[in-house]
Amino acid sequence: MAVLARSPLAPDHFPDLPPVPGIAFAVAETGARYKGRVDLLAIRAEKPIPAAGVFTRSLMPSAAVDWCKSVLPDGAGHLAGILVNAGNANAFTGKAGALCNETLARAYAAHLGCTPDAIALASTGVIGEPLDPAPLLAALPGLAFNSADWEQAARAISTTDTFPKGASARARIDGDEVVITGIAKGSGMIQPDMATMLGFICTNAAIAPEALIDLLREAVGQSFNRITVDSDTSTSDSILMLASGCGVTHAPISRADDPRLDDFRRQLKAVLIDLAHQVVRDGEGAQKFITIRITGAESESAAQIIGFAIANSPLIKTAIAGCDPNWGRIIMAVGKSGQKADRDRLKIWLGDQLVAEDGARHPAYSEAIAASHMRGQNIAIHVDVAVGEGAATVWTCDLTHGYISINADYRS
Amino acid sequence: MAVLARSPLAPDHFPDLPPVPGIAFAVAETGARYKGRVDLLAIRAEKPIPAAGVFTRSLMPSAAVDWCKSVLPDGAGHLAGILVNAGNANAFTGKAGALCNETLARAYAAHLGCTPDAIALASTGVIGEPLDPAPLLAALPGLAFNSADWEQAARAISTTDTFPKGASARARIDGDEVVITGIAKGSGMIQPDMATMLGFICTNAAIAPEALIDLLREAVGQSFNRITVDSDTSTSDSILMLASGCGVTHAPISRADDPRLDDFRRQLKAVLIDLAHQVVRDGEGAQKFITIRITGAESESAAQIIGFAIANSPLIKTAIAGCDPNWGRIIMAVGKSGQKADRDRLKIWLGDQLVAEDGARHPAYSEAIAASHMRGQNIAIHVDVAVGEGAATVWTCDLTHGYISINADYRS
Repeated sequence: MAVLARSPLAPDHFPDLPPVPGIAFAVAETGARYKGRVDLLAIRAEKPIPAAGVFTRSLMPSAAVDWCKSVLPDGAGHLAGILVNAGNANAFTGKAGALCNETLARAYAAHLGCTPDAIALASTGVIGEPLDPAPLLAALPGLAFNSADWEQAARAISTTDTFPKGASARARIDGDEVVITGIAKGSGMIQPDMATMLGFICTNAAIAPEALIDLLREAVGQSFNRITVDSDTSTSDSILMLASGCGVTHAPISRADDPRLDDFRRQLKAVLIDLAHQVVRDGEGAQKFITIRITGAESESAAQIIGFAIANSPLIKTAIAGCDPNWGRIIMAVGKSGQKADRDRLKIWLGDQLVAEDGARHPAYSEAIAASHMRGQNIAIHVDVAVGEGAATVWTCDLTHGYISINADYRS
Repeated sequence: MAVLARSPLAPDHFPDLPPVPGIAFAVAETGARYKGRVDLLAIRAEKPIPAAGVFTRSLMPSAAVDWCKSVLPDGAGHLAGILVNAGNANAFTGKAGALCNETLARAYAAHLGCTPDAIALASTGVIGEPLDPAPLLAALPGLAFNSADWEQAARAISTTDTFPKGASARARIDGDEVVITGIAKGSGMIQPDMATMLGFICTNAAIAPEALIDLLREAVGQSFNRITVDSDTSTSDSILMLASGCGVTHAPISRADDPRLDDFRRQLKAVLIDLAHQVVRDGEGAQKFITIRITGAESESAAQIIGFAIANSPLIKTAIAGCDPNWGRIIMAVGKSGQKADRDRLKIWLGDQLVAEDGARHPAYSEAIAASHMRGQNIAIHVDVAVGEGAATVWTCDLTHGYISINADYRS
């Protein structure tokens, strides 16, 4: 695997992330696939605490996704630990893969003193390769909790990521200030031989599992489910969230629509959007960060579908890579989306410039202004499809020679 | 626009195509966008003859598609002429675009001595640029019918195509031998600034419009609708078919399920598949021709959706470009297709080798054999998803640096 240069869209530095009371973690170098880097993340709580998980919609889910769905029925439950390995997705590995997961869960549960159904698992890496549990099991006795920082945790779950990804926010619940901290990995919906977008979100809020899963689904719907690098959905995508309820005075909250959660909901969404943007900024070969805003659609879901038709169009992504304000391709993508749009009334903006309206190019359209916007690192496309009130924003990156090089030129 | 090298997947030479009794054509250099090459194709029949058309499903159709749908309600009717220009798609050009088409149809109808509703139009090229009818109108008086051959006709409708595309077959209807000859253009569902996949099919069979459209839809469904270069659907895709009934003795056939059409149906499908394959072989940047066979799906349409999920996956297309037998990505694509598949029973073949079955890699899998297949120019992927009897084959090409160069590096 070639060493990839840090993405030009990477943030300057990893953010300062506070600890989350009641939740500890450790990292290890198992040497299972990578040498000389951490590749195992172990998260633990003092006891089983409220937890929620959102998983890939792939119909070929990995063994770890199968496992998590069994311990978090309908996405909600209680967990005392999460074990994550990088380098092998344990996907399409048949009965051996399931058995391997059971072995890992039992061993980590014994280590923590809980039952295996309080353990969640996540794996990221090659699809179709058997995962040998031995190097991971060997690392468990030596785990030193509270000795690693969040940046190390984010590095331990990376595959072809070119920078570690973390985000944090504070939220008020009643009289308490709680912390929400998350890490994620991913530089494509799926990587070269390395599947997976993973995210782990921890908070010390006291929120019951059934409320936690509702909050998480809502925030994921507006963050991770609104990004694309290459339209390819991994077998292993997983976002797991833990809520310790440590160091707070508010009573556990059991409904997601409880008004005491208003600020928490906003802050959780902000953390997830921040992480999702970082995944796009690490998109394979990405040189530009693209924000696509759709308004005037029949519904929010129609707006999202149109947004993704634009975000996944190879011709739009290559035009942007080439700094080409080729807005005719946006018309094409809206047309192929299958969603209602009024060809003769729609409007398109590139950056702040209105380039098309009423079914034709705007009379005052300036190619020079459009080209100047396209030369920037942040590209904004806004399409109003003029049939309703539905709106959504999706984010993506451009499609460059770097993407081809990462996925075709190198054997991973 | 850079001059593109002839595709390595191009056929050795343009096929020998026979004339079609009752149908003539002419080409011209209008200079509207290109210099020094033919860019206008005029097709004419002696009188309005049975005709059928299948058009883009884009909801942003070009002015020419709008026009054709009005003269061929439900895709069927009678036409005396077709006028095709290359270089400007006349798409998203508002009222001016519709007016331009009316002008062209009226002028060509006057030239042929028919009514404008017996004229079909097709345009291919840039989206969103006003089309000036003047250079096209100026070329009409000088049209010399029967002086051009099919290869020139195919060249006149090209944009970024690197070779002209034609195919022909003979079919028996009752005691007659009829000819079916077609030309097409396209090297992507949409081109760099140059929209459109166009095809024109001519026959001297005597078939009524309502039967012709059924035959055409069926054949298009198994040919042009089963190819993809980059998943982008053009605003202008059009396949038009004319049936002159000239030089034959059989009575006009009015039902597509008439058993006298059995051979014709097969031969028509063969011509369209041949043309569709040529479009894939001219896919932008293509180095490999890929056949994807899906069996065991819930239905034919489910098989087609799974086939396209594989054919449109950037990660699979780049892996193939890199000669990488990365079959884990095929699992990923089946999983994201949304169609029913049995993860624990499906089978995958690369070339003749069974690489996966029963939810895991086949014990006898040889990476060396798989890699050897991937180094070839023709790649065959077969997936049996093990849930039913549905089957379909789709065709595509790989995704290479050439695609990025054509679409990002050059300003068209």
